Amino acid sequence: MPGVLEDIRVLDMSRFISGPYCAQLLADMGAEVIRIEKIGGGDDRFLGPFTASNESMGAMIYNRNKKGITLNIRSDQGRELLKRLVKISDVVIENFTAGYLESLGIGYEDLRKTNPGIIFASISAYGGYGPYSRKGAFDQIIQGMSGLMYVTGHPGDPPVKAGISLSDYGAALYTALGVVLALRHRDKTGEGQMIDVSLFDTAISFLETIIPEYKVNHQVRPQIGNRRPYSAPTDTYKCKDGYVSISISTEALWRRFTKLIGREDLTNDPRFTGNANRTVNQHYLNNLAAAWAADRTVEEALRLLDEAHIPCGTVQTITEVVEDPQVKAREMVVDVDHPGSGSVPLPGIVIKMSKTQGKIDTPAPQVGQHNEEIFSQLLELSSEEINELKEKNVI
Amino acid sequence: MPGVLEDIRVLDMSRFISGPYCAQLLADMGAEVIRIEKIGGGDDRFLGPFTASNESMGAMIYNRNKKGITLNIRSDQGRELLKRLVKISDVVIENFTAGYLESLGIGYEDLRKTNPGIIFASISAYGGYGPYSRKGAFDQIIQGMSGLMYVTGHPGDPPVKAGISLSDYGAALYTALGVVLALRHRDKTGEGQMIDVSLFDTAISFLETIIPEYKVNHQVRPQIGNRRPYSAPTDTYKCKDGYVSISISTEALWRRFTKLIGREDLTNDPRFTGNANRTVNQHYLNNLAAAWAADRTVEEALRLLDEAHIPCGTVQTITEVVEDPQVKAREMVVDVDHPGSGSVPLPGIVIKMSKTQGKIDTPAPQVGQHNEEIFSQLLELSSEEINELKEKNVI
Repeated sequence: MPGVLEDIRVLDMSRFISGPYCAQLLADMGAEVIRIEKIGGGDDRFLGPFTASNESMGAMIYNRNKKGITLNIRSDQGRELLKRLVKISDVVIENFTAGYLESLGIGYEDLRKTNPGIIFASISAYGGYGPYSRKGAFDQIIQGMSGLMYVTGHPGDPPVKAGISLSDYGAALYTALGVVLALRHRDKTGEGQMIDVSLFDTAISFLETIIPEYKVNHQVRPQIGNRRPYSAPTDTYKCKDGYVSISISTEALWRRFTKLIGREDLTNDPRFTGNANRTVNQHYLNNLAAAWAADRTVEEALRLLDEAHIPCGTVQTITEVVEDPQVKAREMVVDVDHPGSGSVPLPGIVIKMSKTQGKIDTPAPQVGQHNEEIFSQLLELSSEEINELKEKNVI
Repeated sequence: MPGVLEDIRVLDMSRFISGPYCAQLLADMGAEVIRIEKIGGGDDRFLGPFTASNESMGAMIYNRNKKGITLNIRSDQGRELLKRLVKISDVVIENFTAGYLESLGIGYEDLRKTNPGIIFASISAYGGYGPYSRKGAFDQIIQGMSGLMYVTGHPGDPPVKAGISLSDYGAALYTALGVVLALRHRDKTGEGQMIDVSLFDTAISFLETIIPEYKVNHQVRPQIGNRRPYSAPTDTYKCKDGYVSISISTEALWRRFTKLIGREDLTNDPRFTGNANRTVNQHYLNNLAAAWAADRTVEEALRLLDEAHIPCGTVQTITEVVEDPQVKAREMVVDVDHPGSGSVPLPGIVIKMSKTQGKIDTPAPQVGQHNEEIFSQLLELSSEEINELKEKNVI
């Protein structure tokens, strides 16, 4: 089954998470992705965790299905080779600090002269314009700046971020979507374009109703732990031996819940009809749910909630997640053999497509692994020319 | 400027966040999206926060740029009308509990008979197959089940989720990407397909290196607040009047940091060369950074860090976020007038595209607002037929 992007060539000039993950999404769907690193390897190869053979697990995760070359884009010859690659490619992905590639003469305005059909996707901390556009940032900083940290955590906690780099993942997904939309436009018109996605805009777009709540209703969303601001009982409740999450957010769920806990006298109590009333009286309802959970083991609570058709779950540890039968059934952890490092589990493919399913073909390349192949086959350089480029520290 | 999806018609049968946001992403890019609700309005209209005129802000956010009709898909006539709409549409998006539409005879296998080119995107808690496929869940439950809660929070905290529904947003983005990929395949081959995305798979895919850390290196990632496991000093540090986030994750940043705090004696100290060594000795480095921050106001700390070219930020409150000059420059909060409710701020468009920029044209529809238009113009029903459908509670 050929990939849906099998006719597409992507130059991945990015590093860390957002750019590499964006390019990986395209590679998983069949695009030929050529990862361009600096000589000696990009910064992400020096960020842990590492395997016993000292390879970065992050680089392994985000660069599967890609080919890898080295290129010194600070050299004239490196930039000329880059332009030759751009000429025969469809997409460029980069996440340098805004302005860096322009300063080298290989920004979008330069590269479109080489290839007017090129789709140039730029991911940055704050975006390509605006007062912060030249500032760098990492996800943790963005979670603070965007208000995400302000609404995360239990009441009274110091500010805390989501445990994972959600603005990086989000920006990768927005950018991949932009690239495929731009391919559709190019397929129709021949015209390329520039895509500008920022981690900051991404995080702002994830704020749910928090901004209108403040601007229209003059309410500032507080830290509320695992509660939801507009439904109750909704929280993670302590059982004898762990936690159980429930979320009662419709009338049907409320009816099932009161029946489950043997309090059908409350079902039609006006204090608790509708999400709005239940939220006003959430203290009472959370205490009811907490008391119900406290008497039970996690296993017992989940079984009873399941039987009552009330959505529920526990707080799984990472050791439980890797053994979870649904994770296995969906192939969301895939062991891939990496030469020199052995088997390393990579995340599976989220988008399950009945006709054009993505797949994991190859492990992440080592530094410069495909230099010979790309420079000889794609750019038709001779072995002598390639050796000379190596000697001159161009590749 | 016509939208890149202007030739695409989407039937949005979804509710709450993931499905509606997925369809909104397509609507923003020019697709004609017809939202299909049950008579009286879908569940999400009854979830707060509400405007003074009692309209759900969530429904306003996720349904902009859409048309809205009502349809009773539990009635034979409703299902027949749905099939007539499917026949002239390109995409269906739904996020009912897995199996519900099949039980009504309008699952993908039924609808593809009506339109073999249809792209049917299904978002569910755990996906369309596997042992949990029939279980419902909300984001908070998924954050617990996926391990995200386990790695979020300060050390020793009870489990805590990200303050926003990240698995909903992520699943919406994966699905929108799947839809546009499927459109590309259909444009080439005429063939439609089924897309199956789950909140659970989405959350698992966001676990960074946490799974290989455990499976290969036998390390379980603990709760670490705002630290990062493989770089230091990296945290949110307390200033005199607030917080400042920094993240020292490259050698260049380490050199700048030691210079900033007047400790260039440490720059080449072997205890602190490379991320790996700095992580081992992170306690010392975090204390250094904390002491530096404690003596300064947020404004002073940010200015000094900016001058040293070290990425940094503070923890903004929601009141600061809405006034942030970068948010304004990027138009990430857009006031849209809603008939009856006045102006409500909606999130702007994240993907900035130089040739096919999305836009916000219309506010979210009220219940059944476009019944006349869709049923008379698209399905060519007469006024009498439409009135009869209303009387029979079909629309």
